[in-house]
Amino acid sequence: MTDLADAPVPAQPVLGDSSTWGPEQQRTIHWHEPHGVAAVGLTLSGLDYLHAMADGRLPLPPIARLLDMRPVSATEGEVVFECTPDHSGYNPLGFVHGGVMCTLLDTAGGCAVHTTLPAGVGYTSIEIKVSYLRGVHAGVPLRAVGRVTKPGRRVAFAEAEILDPDGKLVASATTSCLIIGG
Amino acid sequence: MTDLADAPVPAQPVLGDSSTWGPEQQRTIHWHEPHGVAAVGLTLSGLDYLHAMADGRLPLPPIARLLDMRPVSATEGEVVFECTPDHSGYNPLGFVHGGVMCTLLDTAGGCAVHTTLPAGVGYTSIEIKVSYLRGVHAGVPLRAVGRVTKPGRRVAFAEAEILDPDGKLVASATTSCLIIGG
Amino acid sequence: MTDLADAPVPAQPVLGDSSTWGPEQQRTIHWHEPHGVAAVGLTLSGLDYLHAMADGRLPLPPIARLLDMRPVSATEGEVVFECTPDHSGYNPLGFVHGGVMCTLLDTAGGCAVHTTLPAGVGYTSIEIKVSYLRGVHAGVPLRAVGRVTKPGRRVAFAEAEILDPDGKLVASATTSCLIIGG
Amino acid sequence: MTDLADAPVPAQPVLGDSSTWGPEQQRTIHWHEPHGVAAVGLTLSGLDYLHAMADGRLPLPPIARLLDMRPVSATEGEVVFECTPDHSGYNPLGFVHGGVMCTLLDTAGGCAVHTTLPAGVGYTSIEIKVSYLRGVHAGVPLRAVGRVTKPGRRVAFAEAEILDPDGKLVASATTSCLIIGG
Repeated sequence: MTDLADAPVPAQPVLGDSSTWGPEQQRTIHWHEPHGVAAVGLTLSGLDYLHAMADGRLPLPPIARLLDMRPVSATEGEVVFECTPDHSGYNPLGFVHGGVMCTLLDTAGGCAVHTTLPAGVGYTSIEIKVSYLRGVHAGVPLRAVGRVTKPGRRVAFAEAEILDPDGKLVASATTSCLIIGG
Repeated sequence: MTDLADAPVPAQPVLGDSSTWGPEQQRTIHWHEPHGVAAVGLTLSGLDYLHAMADGRLPLPPIARLLDMRPVSATEGEVVFECTPDHSGYNPLGFVHGGVMCTLLDTAGGCAVHTTLPAGVGYTSIEIKVSYLRGVHAGVPLRAVGRVTKPGRRVAFAEAEILDPDGKLVASATTSCLIIGG
Repeated sequence: MTDLADAPVPAQPVLGDSSTWGPEQQRTIHWHEPHGVAAVGLTLSGLDYLHAMADGRLPLPPIARLLDMRPVSATEGEVVFECTPDHSGYNPLGFVHGGVMCTLLDTAGGCAVHTTLPAGVGYTSIEIKVSYLRGVHAGVPLRAVGRVTKPGRRVAFAEAEILDPDGKLVASATTSCLIIGG
Repeated sequence: MTDLADAPVPAQPVLGDSSTWGPEQQRTIHWHEPHGVAAVGLTLSGLDYLHAMADGRLPLPPIARLLDMRPVSATEGEVVFECTPDHSGYNPLGFVHGGVMCTLLDTAGGCAVHTTLPAGVGYTSIEIKVSYLRGVHAGVPLRAVGRVTKPGRRVAFAEAEILDPDGKLVASATTSCLIIGG
């Protein structure tokens, strides 16, 4: 961890009036190193692994705690994640950064592929394309749905979309994953 | 902020041996709300705005502190960001999550577009496509370079790439941005 | 038109046994220059324009005749094209070239956006991402469906997919279009 | 080949004044079925195969003759194609259809990957993302350059760009390919 990110904001000559910056805020993240969990994960099918995470029998990976996203359901070929972004993911313009949407969509698409894999078979994302349809503010509960569009022994394809509470499409993605050890 | 992400990891019945999970870790993030900064930003050209952030005369936006990424240089049409991911961005497999790469690439590409804009003109990302070339571990200092491939009054195009310390390409992206108020 | 593409295949020293190349084949394409049609098109809403093409009251553009694709239905936000690729679109491996799929998908996605536009408002594709799910052979009737995922005054988003006669997904795409003159 | 595409344009009631459509044009394409060539191709490295096509010792595949594109150079990891689109690839707006750009870019990117493969090893495109930077008219000689950004035993990545005679970027793409039989 570098000083820049985690040290309190330093006092220094500023542009504009720093009183307009608003108060400093903070948040503390807790996580477990994922290596031990990954070893357990290799003994489970993708579907069992996701169920174990959704049920709290396995800890969520660090990224899930960093962005506060969690699996809420998983069936073969489809998963649903929930995430209510907070202000720590804001971009300079006062919206949730698109990268948070990418992370949610990559997770939903990849985990949808994972639900089609037996124990001992892994995957890694090859690429993702994300379309940003609407801006998002903090505090809005988002629902990310990932679906496999074509499973495969070597490459699998998935799509994912993020919906706001009104069912409006916020962002969507298509992704492909390399299947490893199949 | 929800309980799930920020509460200490709860004790509960677990799958496998929880002693293999490794010790709990934590990190505290500090940030300023971006709204006041955004108002200052509107009075600056994109290039001046990025220089002010790189020099510390304006605070970094929350997302930059969440992922510990910061601008190190900006010229017209090109920006460089640095980021050394820590374990808080890990996926379940023990690599930095692809979404962290997406966030860096979206930032580098978007800020490259921003360097071409005068004061009062904004932009928003339309879409991004990210290719994941190599896995990344925590502690590796990454360099993200964003370049405008075509500026425009209505739409601008950029590419971005992330390089590791050996100069190997870790991930790359192409993105398009809508220009607002031009 | 260059000599290379349209002259009969020249006799020359060849690699392997040219008798294995199979007989030379040919096809003649007919089209109208699109400029006059474009002028008529500007007086129509996108939906009326597509209906006129589907009904034969306006000629299909050259690309539609080159690849033998044609609109079969159009409603607000959705269009369907049909195309039965022939051997003239083959790649060296003996499949229909992916570029033919791209052209169909770009057409379906763009025309779906067009159905949302009034007379006098145009559009141009910003980008497209195409996923190749299954290989395609000549003679298979394909159905390409384009749908708007978000209309807009400045940018509109669409998705498109190509289905084979069994309803299997052959290729899919997401695209964004800049709205012009809105 | 269906009647619709290859029959002379039928006389029928038309929208607007059909005299504004301009004269009917035609073009005849000649090609060899690719299957025999593909069999020869399997005995060559990718680089030798592309050299044989560039030199005319193997016939170009049908798609290359349909769109009049041809390889002009190939080294390990990089290929160059040339293409001067004619009016047969026009869209309704009077520009070369984006699908022609996609086909060129897919070809350049895929063939760049092919240059890294030994005899007997094949590839297939997983996906491509194309950015449309500038419109193109018929008669402009285009140069498409494909480069491998990361070779691989299972997946390889490439980028491609199309330049006009002034060196301006017309369109660009990133693509990934699955390596088969490696």
